[in-house]
Amino acid sequence: MITTDILIIGAGPTGLFAVFEAGLLKLKCHIIDALPQPGGQLTELYPKKPIFDIPGFPSVLAGDLVTNLMDQIKQFQPGFTLNEKAETIDKLDDGTFIVTTNKGTKHHAKAVAIAGGLGSFEPRKPQLPNIEAYEENGVEYFVKNPEQFRDKRIVIAGGGDSALDWSIFLADVAKEVTLVHRRNEFRGALDSVEKVQELKHQGKINLITPAEVTNVLGNGKVEALEIDREGEKSVFETDYFIPLFGLTPKLGPIANWGLEIEKNAIKVNNALDYQTNIEGIYAIGDINTYPGKLKLILCGFHEATLMCQSVYSRLNPGKKYVLKYTTVSGVDGFDGTRKEAEKQVVKAIE
Amino acid sequence: MITTDILIIGAGPTGLFAVFEAGLLKLKCHIIDALPQPGGQLTELYPKKPIFDIPGFPSVLAGDLVTNLMDQIKQFQPGFTLNEKAETIDKLDDGTFIVTTNKGTKHHAKAVAIAGGLGSFEPRKPQLPNIEAYEENGVEYFVKNPEQFRDKRIVIAGGGDSALDWSIFLADVAKEVTLVHRRNEFRGALDSVEKVQELKHQGKINLITPAEVTNVLGNGKVEALEIDREGEKSVFETDYFIPLFGLTPKLGPIANWGLEIEKNAIKVNNALDYQTNIEGIYAIGDINTYPGKLKLILCGFHEATLMCQSVYSRLNPGKKYVLKYTTVSGVDGFDGTRKEAEKQVVKAIE
Ligand SMILES: Cc1cc2nc3c(=O)[nH]c(=O)nc-3n(C[C@H](O)[C@H](O)[C@H](O)COP(=O)(O)OP(=O)(O)OC[C@H]3O[C@@H](n4cnc5c(N)ncnc54)[C@H](O)[C@@H]3O)c2cc1C
Ligand SMILES: Cc1cc2nc3c(=O)[nH]c(=O)nc-3n(C[C@H](O)[C@H](O)[C@H](O)COP(=O)(O)OP(=O)(O)OC[C@H]3O[C@@H](n4cnc5c(N)ncnc54)[C@H](O)[C@@H]3O)c2cc1C
Repeated sequence: MITTDILIIGAGPTGLFAVFEAGLLKLKCHIIDALPQPGGQLTELYPKKPIFDIPGFPSVLAGDLVTNLMDQIKQFQPGFTLNEKAETIDKLDDGTFIVTTNKGTKHHAKAVAIAGGLGSFEPRKPQLPNIEAYEENGVEYFVKNPEQFRDKRIVIAGGGDSALDWSIFLADVAKEVTLVHRRNEFRGALDSVEKVQELKHQGKINLITPAEVTNVLGNGKVEALEIDREGEKSVFETDYFIPLFGLTPKLGPIANWGLEIEKNAIKVNNALDYQTNIEGIYAIGDINTYPGKLKLILCGFHEATLMCQSVYSRLNPGKKYVLKYTTVSGVDGFDGTRKEAEKQVVKAIE
Repeated sequence: MITTDILIIGAGPTGLFAVFEAGLLKLKCHIIDALPQPGGQLTELYPKKPIFDIPGFPSVLAGDLVTNLMDQIKQFQPGFTLNEKAETIDKLDDGTFIVTTNKGTKHHAKAVAIAGGLGSFEPRKPQLPNIEAYEENGVEYFVKNPEQFRDKRIVIAGGGDSALDWSIFLADVAKEVTLVHRRNEFRGALDSVEKVQELKHQGKINLITPAEVTNVLGNGKVEALEIDREGEKSVFETDYFIPLFGLTPKLGPIANWGLEIEKNAIKVNNALDYQTNIEGIYAIGDINTYPGKLKLILCGFHEATLMCQSVYSRLNPGKKYVLKYTTVSGVDGFDGTRKEAEKQVVKAIE
């Protein structure tokens, strides 16, 4: 059982920054995310695109913002349960919570902050008979660990950035990379498209277009795919099939936690602390709703900060909290670091 | 008469970022500040100190954050009335406002956002007979324009960073710099103290300590000061007297605008849009108060954003606002620039 002060569901920018604010108050955090890496929408949907409305950054690439946030919270050593979806929640008699993931991992926490964004991202699966039977047996919807494909034959399907970028990356890792797409045209960053073209000419990527994978074949694990190329079907041997058709967010299991839901989002008390109708459960960032709500990154930061203050008060009843400026009081990380501004000196001039 | 959509009182981080969010909504802003430069507390009180809790910046010098914010809003070309204090407000029959400064400058705006922080900074004045008579006639409480002192004799009084830093800076500008402090010890950044020591030894700064200026002398303008050095009084000739004893923030004239005030701050509706009890007047950043309020920079950013949305709805009744992401829709600056993310291409691979 993993134990922590605040269990955060969702490693998007909101959940990540919550770790920092909690850390300032000496509260420990653990984050669950269904995706293999932190960053939420920023990492999954637009890592290489600039954001222009993060205060203090005239422009910042989404991926860089996530890197910066990870750097900022490192000192507070958050725990991570990645690749797992928070599925059920139980409130114990003492007011604490147990959250269990789809893989059975249990987390015990004094407070829960749902920073689940648009919900957990689910891969869009191709409509193929029996594909479920091959999941984790040669069919992968994410590239979680590229080394898994070393010296293997892989077939990637899709026509967007993920399909392009992973084909490029894995061309150096796998024995054989084949990219199947139902059109001749790809939709992605110009340099990715050009790179795939180049690798094709070097014989490092096979391109099969316009074509579709129509069946998965193999005994217990993927051994071959049936590919339909303009009506002509053929069998193509491979070790892995990686359909990268994008992700769709689903509020998913959280919808059944007894929280007040409005338009696919969780209602919170924005007049105080972004707490939900269940005491001790907060919702921050894109996943919450209240009058005037804006689904913006900078709003999530504010909500995370007020949420942490509220948790602090709940856990320390009666203790008066005095706001301390980081500039003045410094930041004591759980990793033993201490960061502070240069102190002024009092010194005579002779 | 200066006219604008949103008149912002206070050029601290909150007021500055409000210009950006307003700009995204095609609302024009004008900012009034009592200080000679933008940045509020960050520029005036701790420009060289790092802040650790700005999301996405593991550490950022306060002065750099202000520079970044100025850079971010430049494209929206805000107007500035600096060195003037907003003093009176009149609400016209059509719901617009006229705000007049202590120097009589009038501003006509459709909405007013008070981002006045702890209030306008007033210099701590030395208790000297008749000093008021010499104000702007040789007595200066701020260095607004260093060139004013070129080839003049100046006396600076004070023992902190401002006194040290301006003595250093003006040593190269003025004919003669004298620093008077009532102790031998100075309180400031180590390098500033050491630099003053060095300049003293080079004969570029006269130091008179422990001593106090006890009278201002001159016919209509400063011609000399009476200085008391451990009980011994002498007359010291100079063109300027610059007492730098720090600033104290005062809510000041805004306290009489009919706004609901609580503990020196303006009460706002945090459950919606940070509007005050007077429709069309908002209060954002350190100057407002509501249940759970934290006087933090990142909270001011959020409040500024929601305020702008509310002004937009007031000015465009019935028009449905659809949130646009800067990454997706780009940023059209009033200066004619357009910033956007690199577009995806749709391209065939041959
Ligand atoms: C193309 C695009 C451009 C954008 N541009 C901007 C912009 O310019 N400015 C701006 O402010 N915003 C922009 N946004 C919106 C911004 O990305 C979101 O506001 C932000 O990501 C919200 O952060 P979050 O942390 O609340 O949620 P998310 O980033 O959505 O992260 C939520 C995380 O929670 C996880 N999760 C959800 N449910 C579960 C569960 N049950 N178990 C485990 N994990 C779960 C998800 O896997 C996800 O990783 C843009 C969005 C897109 C798609
Ligand atoms: C030493 C120190 C360290 C700090 N460290 C941190 C930190 O680490 N993190 C953090 O988040 N915060 C920190 N703060 C607090 C932070 O500086 C404030 O939250 C922030 O400055 C508030 O911004 P603001 O724009 O609301 O107001 P301010 O920065 O106070 O700016 C308000 C401006 O309004 C002007 N003004 C007021 N009234 C009038 C008027 N009537 N007419 C014209 N102008 C007027 C003032 O001159 C001023 O320039 C620190 C503060 C100090 C003093």
